[in-house]
Amino acid sequence: MKPESRKQEIINAASILFKEKGYSAVTMRDLAKAMGIKAASLYNHIQSKQEILATIIIELAEEFTTGMNRIVNSEKSTIQKLENIIDLHIDVTLRNADGLASLNNDWMHLEEENLQYFEKMRQDYEENFRNIVQKGVDKSEIRSYNIEIMVFSTLSTLRTLYLWYPKQNDIDAAILKHDMMSVLLKGVV
Amino acid sequence: MKPESRKQEIINAASILFKEKGYSAVTMRDLAKAMGIKAASLYNHIQSKQEILATIIIELAEEFTTGMNRIVNSEKSTIQKLENIIDLHIDVTLRNADGLASLNNDWMHLEEENLQYFEKMRQDYEENFRNIVQKGVDKSEIRSYNIEIMVFSTLSTLRTLYLWYPKQNDIDAAILKHDMMSVLLKGVV
Repeated sequence: MKPESRKQEIINAASILFKEKGYSAVTMRDLAKAMGIKAASLYNHIQSKQEILATIIIELAEEFTTGMNRIVNSEKSTIQKLENIIDLHIDVTLRNADGLASLNNDWMHLEEENLQYFEKMRQDYEENFRNIVQKGVDKSEIRSYNIEIMVFSTLSTLRTLYLWYPKQNDIDAAILKHDMMSVLLKGVV
Repeated sequence: MKPESRKQEIINAASILFKEKGYSAVTMRDLAKAMGIKAASLYNHIQSKQEILATIIIELAEEFTTGMNRIVNSEKSTIQKLENIIDLHIDVTLRNADGLASLNNDWMHLEEENLQYFEKMRQDYEENFRNIVQKGVDKSEIRSYNIEIMVFSTLSTLRTLYLWYPKQNDIDAAILKHDMMSVLLKGVV
């Protein structure tokens, strides 16, 4: 197996363990055991548990950052931008729900530099979201309510999708996207 | 101080500690220290840390259960019922955001009987919510999307309100209620 894919395999196994037990409770020994290899051989591929956590979370945060930057800088309408944001969250959730559990539950265990970088990305993400909503209100493309309430109502749903969707057996991805966009943007009434 | 209010004082102090450190990490000694009293004197009012957790969570869950039963059994329209549910969550959040943190983060630490009782209440609550939405769709009072997606989109926001609202300094309760109902029910578009 190539070093790169072995590393990815470690990341994936760690994501599942972190999700189940939380970052703090998982040891490198647990990880080796779950993968059926010796703890020592993990260190041929990664330096520490912290490196694994940082890899999981920073890659995801960069993916959201890149996606959001593309959306913010596009020439689309506010509604299309909001649809693209919902699309981004659903795509990432479908691809890596386990990693999102680490991002949501264990980001505070990132160490100094990575923690700052993560917090900066999260803050910028929310700020970009807020600006899209604010501009939409200013241009009367969306209704005028409190900006923070609109951002929170949407983000709180998108950010907990990783917990809920894996438990749904009979909602396919196309229905999820279509109905979630409709419900979040147009409401239920 | 009356025994009843002393007990309430212990519950309140414990809610804050559980929120900050998580149930498992808090000791009765920590609690006594936070209250500036001796650990032994806590036991004049409560039997154990488990009793405190159960009191916090079961009381909140019963409050949601009672509120939901009243709403389900009323003769109101689906939209009014949904408005009442949003109202219920906002009221409980305004009154006891610290307790809701325990309910959300530490319910799994409840012991046998209380755990079952809690899980039953939560399940019934979701089932009642689902039935209200389903009936609303059947009677064409609300739009027809996947029921689970509609329930999740609303509940995920209401259930994380306790985390977000205490950090908002300039949104008063009346604006919160009005704008959140509008956004959740009528959307932003």
